[in-house]
Amino acid sequence: MTTTSATPQMSRSEALALRYGDGPVPLAGPWNDQIAALLSHRSVRGYRPDPLPDGTLETLVAAAQSAATSSNLQVWSVIAVTDADARRELAEIAGGQQHIVQCPLYLVWLADLARNSRLGQSAGVEMQAIPYLETFMLAVIDAALAAQNAVVAAESLGLSTVYIGAMRNDPLRVARLLGLPAGTVGVFGLCVGYAADSEAGEVKPRLPQATVLHRERYGREDDPGLRAVYDREMNDFRLRNGLPPQTWSELVLARLGRLASMNGREVLKDVVRERGFPLR
Amino acid sequence: MTTTSATPQMSRSEALALRYGDGPVPLAGPWNDQIAALLSHRSVRGYRPDPLPDGTLETLVAAAQSAATSSNLQVWSVIAVTDADARRELAEIAGGQQHIVQCPLYLVWLADLARNSRLGQSAGVEMQAIPYLETFMLAVIDAALAAQNAVVAAESLGLSTVYIGAMRNDPLRVARLLGLPAGTVGVFGLCVGYAADSEAGEVKPRLPQATVLHRERYGREDDPGLRAVYDREMNDFRLRNGLPPQTWSELVLARLGRLASMNGREVLKDVVRERGFPLR
Repeated sequence: MTTTSATPQMSRSEALALRYGDGPVPLAGPWNDQIAALLSHRSVRGYRPDPLPDGTLETLVAAAQSAATSSNLQVWSVIAVTDADARRELAEIAGGQQHIVQCPLYLVWLADLARNSRLGQSAGVEMQAIPYLETFMLAVIDAALAAQNAVVAAESLGLSTVYIGAMRNDPLRVARLLGLPAGTVGVFGLCVGYAADSEAGEVKPRLPQATVLHRERYGREDDPGLRAVYDREMNDFRLRNGLPPQTWSELVLARLGRLASMNGREVLKDVVRERGFPLR
Repeated sequence: MTTTSATPQMSRSEALALRYGDGPVPLAGPWNDQIAALLSHRSVRGYRPDPLPDGTLETLVAAAQSAATSSNLQVWSVIAVTDADARRELAEIAGGQQHIVQCPLYLVWLADLARNSRLGQSAGVEMQAIPYLETFMLAVIDAALAAQNAVVAAESLGLSTVYIGAMRNDPLRVARLLGLPAGTVGVFGLCVGYAADSEAGEVKPRLPQATVLHRERYGREDDPGLRAVYDREMNDFRLRNGLPPQTWSELVLARLGRLASMNGREVLKDVVRERGFPLR
C-alpha cells in the first residue's frame, strides 16, 4: 500500500515534454531522478483514506525545518489537523473542498511572529521590526519555503499533495478554530495522502520557459504567439482530463478579472491586521 | 569538477541529529535519500568561480515551473543575471554580499502581476483582483515555491545556494537595474554555484520540532526550557564555526528588536506600492 521511495524514472525529454506540452521545450542540461520527480509534480484533489506510516508528519516537518529561513528567525509554524469536525469546518471555509476532509494529513501553515514577539516580551525588548510589511512578507516566504520542502519530501515517499490557498478566504475563522494567538495567520493549507485511483491524471503544462525566465533584464517574451500555443495546450489538457474547455487566457481573466472570484479575500489586508500584523 | 547527482547517504538518525543538535530529536518515520538530501541543506556564502554545465539554468527553471502555482496563474518571473557590473550593483544593494558577484549564476525572483495585467489590457478586461494584498501575497508565495524547487534541484546536482532577502533593501534600484515593468518586484535573490572549499561548514541546527509543529490547535511548546537548549546549541554552533558567540534569543532580539537592522526595508510598503502593487 505504501511506498518509501518514488521511482520517477522519466527521461529528461519525456519529463520536459509533459511539463511544456506543445510549447517550445527548453534546452535543459544536467538531470537526475530527483529532478525528474520535481518535474512530475501534480496537485491531487482526491485521496484514499489510507493512513500514513507512523512518523510521516515528523519526517515532513524535519524536511520543512531544513529549508532556508531568513536570518534563521524561523518565523513560521504548522498545525496538523486530524479532528474530523475541524476538517469539515476547514473544508467549508475553503468553499467545500472535500479533499481536506478525505486526506489522512491536513497541514495549516502559519506566518508566525508570535513566537519571536513572546521572546521580546520575556526579554523586555520592544520588537521594533515586527509591525512592518517586510517582516510579514518574510514570515510568508519562510512558511512557503518550508511547505515546499514538505511537498518534495512527501512526493518522494509516493504521497500526493495539494495546496489550499482558500484558507485565506476566512483567516479569522481558521484562527478561532485552531486557537491561533495574535501575530499568527494561516497562509495556506496542504493536503497530504495517497492519491485516489480516479486521480491518476496528467502533469499540467506550464507557460513556455521563455515567458517566465528573463536574461539580464526583464523581457517581453510573452508574445501573443507563445500565449496562443499555451492557450490551445491548456484547452486541450482540460478536454483530455474531462474538464469544460477553457484557455489559459480565459482562466486568468476569470480569476483576476472579477472581484467575486476572490471569495472574500478582498478584505485580507484588514483581516491580517486584525490577526496582529500592522503591515506598516 | 561537477557532479550530476548528490550522494547524501546520511542515515536518518545522523541527519536528524545534525538538524536538531542537542535538542530533542523528532520520531521521524519514512526515510529515503531524497529526504536525507533535504535535511542536509546549508546556505553557502562563498563560491568557486567554476561555470555551471550548459543548460543548468534551464533545468532549474523547469523544476521551478513544476512547483504548484495558485490557480495556475503563474504570477512570478525570474531574471538570470550574469553581467559583472550588474552583479556588483546587486551586491552593493545587498550590503556588500560578495557571493552575489562570485557565484556563476545569480537569480532574482519576482512577484509578477505585470504579465497577467498585460493579458487583461489586450483583452480589454479590468483586472479587478490585481490591486489587492491577497494577489500580491499569492505572487510572493508562487515565487517562493518556485524558487525552493530550484534550490532542491540545484542541491541534487551538487550545487549550493543562498537566498538573498536583501534584494528588498532597495527594490526600486533593483527594478531600475533589471528593467522591471510596473507590477513586478524583486522578492529575493538566489546565488547558485559550487561551494568554495572554505565553505565546508556544518548543517545549522533548528528549533526543536515541538516548537514549530502544533497538533490540532496552536500550543505553547516553545517553553523557556526548550529555548534554553537551542540558545546553547546555536551559541556552540557559532563558536565551532569561527563566529562570534550569540544565542538564538540574542539573534532574534538583534534582528527584530531594532529598526536599524531592517536596512531600509521599513519603507517596503511604500516601495511595493510604487512598483505597482496598491496592496488594497
